[in-house]
Amino acid sequence: MKTRVGVNGYGVIGRRVADAVALQEDMELVGVADVASDFRIRTASLRGYRVYAASEEAGRSMTDRHIDVYGTLDDLLGRVDVVVDCTPKGVEAMNSARYAAAGVRSVFQGGSPHDLAGHSFVAGASYESALGRQATRVVSCNTTATVRTLHALREAGLLRRARGTLIRRAADPWESHLEGIINTMVPEARIPSHQGPDARHVIPDLDVTTMAVMAPNNVGHLHYWSVDLARPASVEEVLAAFMAEPRIAFVRIADGVSALNVTAEVMKELGRPRGDMWEVALWQDMLVVDGLDLHYAYQVDNQAIVVPENIDAIRALAGDVRSGAESIDRTDRSLGVLRDFLEGG
Amino acid sequence: MKTRVGVNGYGVIGRRVADAVALQEDMELVGVADVASDFRIRTASLRGYRVYAASEEAGRSMTDRHIDVYGTLDDLLGRVDVVVDCTPKGVEAMNSARYAAAGVRSVFQGGSPHDLAGHSFVAGASYESALGRQATRVVSCNTTATVRTLHALREAGLLRRARGTLIRRAADPWESHLEGIINTMVPEARIPSHQGPDARHVIPDLDVTTMAVMAPNNVGHLHYWSVDLARPASVEEVLAAFMAEPRIAFVRIADGVSALNVTAEVMKELGRPRGDMWEVALWQDMLVVDGLDLHYAYQVDNQAIVVPENIDAIRALAGDVRSGAESIDRTDRSLGVLRDFLEGG
Amino acid sequence: MKTRVGVNGYGVIGRRVADAVALQEDMELVGVADVASDFRIRTASLRGYRVYAASEEAGRSMTDRHIDVYGTLDDLLGRVDVVVDCTPKGVEAMNSARYAAAGVRSVFQGGSPHDLAGHSFVAGASYESALGRQATRVVSCNTTATVRTLHALREAGLLRRARGTLIRRAADPWESHLEGIINTMVPEARIPSHQGPDARHVIPDLDVTTMAVMAPNNVGHLHYWSVDLARPASVEEVLAAFMAEPRIAFVRIADGVSALNVTAEVMKELGRPRGDMWEVALWQDMLVVDGLDLHYAYQVDNQAIVVPENIDAIRALAGDVRSGAESIDRTDRSLGVLRDFLEGG
Amino acid sequence: MKTRVGVNGYGVIGRRVADAVALQEDMELVGVADVASDFRIRTASLRGYRVYAASEEAGRSMTDRHIDVYGTLDDLLGRVDVVVDCTPKGVEAMNSARYAAAGVRSVFQGGSPHDLAGHSFVAGASYESALGRQATRVVSCNTTATVRTLHALREAGLLRRARGTLIRRAADPWESHLEGIINTMVPEARIPSHQGPDARHVIPDLDVTTMAVMAPNNVGHLHYWSVDLARPASVEEVLAAFMAEPRIAFVRIADGVSALNVTAEVMKELGRPRGDMWEVALWQDMLVVDGLDLHYAYQVDNQAIVVPENIDAIRALAGDVRSGAESIDRTDRSLGVLRDFLEGG
Repeated sequence: MKTRVGVNGYGVIGRRVADAVALQEDMELVGVADVASDFRIRTASLRGYRVYAASEEAGRSMTDRHIDVYGTLDDLLGRVDVVVDCTPKGVEAMNSARYAAAGVRSVFQGGSPHDLAGHSFVAGASYESALGRQATRVVSCNTTATVRTLHALREAGLLRRARGTLIRRAADPWESHLEGIINTMVPEARIPSHQGPDARHVIPDLDVTTMAVMAPNNVGHLHYWSVDLARPASVEEVLAAFMAEPRIAFVRIADGVSALNVTAEVMKELGRPRGDMWEVALWQDMLVVDGLDLHYAYQVDNQAIVVPENIDAIRALAGDVRSGAESIDRTDRSLGVLRDFLEGG
Repeated sequence: MKTRVGVNGYGVIGRRVADAVALQEDMELVGVADVASDFRIRTASLRGYRVYAASEEAGRSMTDRHIDVYGTLDDLLGRVDVVVDCTPKGVEAMNSARYAAAGVRSVFQGGSPHDLAGHSFVAGASYESALGRQATRVVSCNTTATVRTLHALREAGLLRRARGTLIRRAADPWESHLEGIINTMVPEARIPSHQGPDARHVIPDLDVTTMAVMAPNNVGHLHYWSVDLARPASVEEVLAAFMAEPRIAFVRIADGVSALNVTAEVMKELGRPRGDMWEVALWQDMLVVDGLDLHYAYQVDNQAIVVPENIDAIRALAGDVRSGAESIDRTDRSLGVLRDFLEGG
Repeated sequence: MKTRVGVNGYGVIGRRVADAVALQEDMELVGVADVASDFRIRTASLRGYRVYAASEEAGRSMTDRHIDVYGTLDDLLGRVDVVVDCTPKGVEAMNSARYAAAGVRSVFQGGSPHDLAGHSFVAGASYESALGRQATRVVSCNTTATVRTLHALREAGLLRRARGTLIRRAADPWESHLEGIINTMVPEARIPSHQGPDARHVIPDLDVTTMAVMAPNNVGHLHYWSVDLARPASVEEVLAAFMAEPRIAFVRIADGVSALNVTAEVMKELGRPRGDMWEVALWQDMLVVDGLDLHYAYQVDNQAIVVPENIDAIRALAGDVRSGAESIDRTDRSLGVLRDFLEGG
Repeated sequence: MKTRVGVNGYGVIGRRVADAVALQEDMELVGVADVASDFRIRTASLRGYRVYAASEEAGRSMTDRHIDVYGTLDDLLGRVDVVVDCTPKGVEAMNSARYAAAGVRSVFQGGSPHDLAGHSFVAGASYESALGRQATRVVSCNTTATVRTLHALREAGLLRRARGTLIRRAADPWESHLEGIINTMVPEARIPSHQGPDARHVIPDLDVTTMAVMAPNNVGHLHYWSVDLARPASVEEVLAAFMAEPRIAFVRIADGVSALNVTAEVMKELGRPRGDMWEVALWQDMLVVDGLDLHYAYQVDNQAIVVPENIDAIRALAGDVRSGAESIDRTDRSLGVLRDFLEGG
């Protein structure tokens, strides 16, 4: 039997998760809920998704604007096994109680605190510990990328200590005329930034420190890492470690992929929906090893990277697929996740 | 019999034209030629297109990089009826002679001078005069939008005089780390800018003046117009005139479509390939009529707007479809061109 | 006797006005008031200005941060003849009553409605009608530039009708990490934008329409105009009309001044405080006349253009200098206003 | 007797060095040479500097444009003791021979290779070794900041190993419409970037690695460092080490100085010429020490930071002032260099 899934919050993450759910053979997208009645929810209708109103007022506004409404959020909750909460930061605590009352398992996003769900999720690192839980929380885009890459090094016995500088994109494309920055860089006031500590919610004993800064672009995040290796290793060995981890793919400056915008262009040329990149795009030919020093950089698509993790998180909560590797494989095949964007791998 | 088409130059325009050709029932995409051997041409191979080397050196470089090469540009020209030239500005004159020698009809782009082909093309305005010609030239993105909208007003007997300010995006997304601008605006040194005069290559007696300036974005162009009407008209009458012209679609600030980036987001939500917008996106609820004064603004996707025109231009040269309306209809159905992005029209 | 002046609001405009007041031989800067206690007000102290707390809470916060406080806003009002209100939009109505109660004449800025002061001010056009008034309002940066240039054409008998497209900078440099935009353009939802109608508060019978859009830069505004001349005129005649108006200066692309950022660089090289440009910078070699059609473009420094107008507004309210030309001359000499930035004129 | 100084290349660095030379009591600015005849060299004339033509063609072009020319570059070289070469990268090798032939000591900039002058200069670290040399090379803006800060830690016995991520501004303000980037980040293809190795030209045995990336702003560079301390130390001890080094000044997020653009605004409010910041602006309240881990970030004004170093380099070559501390003190007093921008220190 298919897991019945609802998505609450049809924003940047919610609509991508909805599409990905719709692709899974073992899931059914029952509907999406939101409070907006503008172009966003209208495109949900155009895609054929059943729209639920997350508030009474939203319902009236949707009806006024000739959007078909299939019910309230409570109606939706009554029809699903798992709800993916993609609402803006700050409303998830209230939602949590509502989901529990409805007896629905729930997936939260990285904007919510770890304690809300009591479990933080990155598929390659913590699928199994989420099996059958009432709730989990997919960590943020930056933390997801951090965990994927450091988990890869750790599994290969290579990781001693990691220091990262995370250059964050300042806004999402659609909202960049509301909350943007112009001709500046904005440091996060506190060192370490939250991503390093947050990664330890997934892998408790990581020696990781992150510093973060906002840059005036809306294409993606760029992470630079200096890692102390636990033992000497060749470049090839390090690359093999990354290759063994799910959802890390290589790009090369030698192919002309020399900046964030070019990677994004490659995604469009690959026919990706919305140009999405679910993988960490790691520059293969920038990575260097010098003794026990390892340095590398990668790009993160903050709109898309957590989408496959959300799918796996749904499966883990549903509990039918007991193996993380099996779930990851199903998810990645459905989306078309790659290991090397230009080698067709 | 299908028209056999080759695309010379697999850049921003070329790859979009190739995809559109591949969608037409009455055309066959024989192959694409280029001199690059980087990520761009590699994605052509990944799409299954036959790659031809536009120079000997390019052929060697492609082979070195394990890209299958199906022949030279001359080989490609020997196998097609029509070639679409999407090479960078400056090489088209040389190409023109080569196409003529090969007995191949050719479509040029707006970067080339009118005199090269002797005919300038916008489907709604000049399809019939291109029928059976050896060559035509699809005018530039800005001129295409200018001609579509002014032709609409003219056909409705509404146009006396038009004054436009064209705010151009400074670079294409993929190249914006090579030729961009930061925190400035760059006026075109000469008034009128070339688009106004160029529009008269399609509609000779237009009273049109354009002023142009580059802005630091890579999303699209934004045109503002002040038009003197030839006779009093209501807003509805003006909107109807635009609606009667191919490839003009409405957006509304009331739907939250309030800036270039939001329109681009809507395209992604509509599932458009690469997020492309082939239509002029005209803000319905900004348009005002005050006596004989008409003011409006619209957005142009400079990567995509000329794609349907290229398809129609191929058909016009091939000469089998005698009616512009018929060709436009075929093209627009194949692509999914809309008249209103959010009303499903 | 010197006019005693206070500045309420030490923001982008307030601090520039304070500096300009301090330069006038017939004025005394008594002090500046604000609610902030961060770097902004600290630099006021470093400049030697007497700081007044605009609220009790502000006073405590300033004292906590070791900033010398000379009193409350009411104390300041008790010591001045004229107050220049440079507070953020929305608080000026309350302030207005307070100034009136204190018997202090007041200069408001363009963010306030015309009706608040009942008089709108651009020195070259409305100095004399402000003589001895209780209050006036210096119009916004965009409207100031619009009035200066259209007044110039009107005085020369050249103006019939004007249509302008105003490309506004999206944020001030200091705040551009709070309220910016990224990689987009944001049209003002309503045509005409407010500047055209607002210009008629200064010159009632102007036939002017403006359309406005925000661009992602923080350097300055750029205005493009299409004007119908009232009679045939040469380029030289038009330039002479502009030259006869205060605070319009020429730049030329032939000098390499080819974009907003270059004009800003010239200001720095001229040793301008903060790189300020008080003049409308009109591109002399872009201006064209074609029959009765006139087209031109100019740049506006939105942080600085209203500074000389504020000084003249103070003088007009004080009432001792009866001639606008005399006041303008004093102001412009004190600041070093130019007519041609690179010819030393 | 005053050291007679010429500046060859009146660009971003050259004109700032010229102004700084003119401020020194022990130096005389004889003149400036350039090949440009546009707004840049015109403003040199407006400042009263004697302009020399760096080529025959330049001389003719300057004369045509009514710029007074005082002679050729050779004439200038015949009248000076020291020339500061601020020409674009690539012409300095030829210039070097010319300066030697003229018997003039020369200061090069960081774009030239270390071997050209055989000595790399940062005042606090290598003044004395430059005394009386024929030539030295002031290292680049990024390397200057790197050396200042790491030298500070080293002198205090605190430095074991340093890993830096340098986020570079993509273009200078005046040129940002020619060579900019839009909505992207561009990694430097090679790790380590050149700054780390280059710092070892000044302090040979530094354990330093740098990674660099270009961001779309023209305000300044932002460096993030993770340092392994050589011994445990308190935050106060680390701050004291920085305070003991010339030309490092503190800023604080608590003062509202929360981003690159705000620091730049503070410079304008301090009345700095062109808004220049000669100091490394280190965020005092972001710096953290955790065991032997030290993390901090600072901002670099790439147009201004090397200006005081150039003045000291001139003095070192001239050889009259034997103490670096004495030269630094003279330079810093003349410019108004600060140790804390908002405390008046």
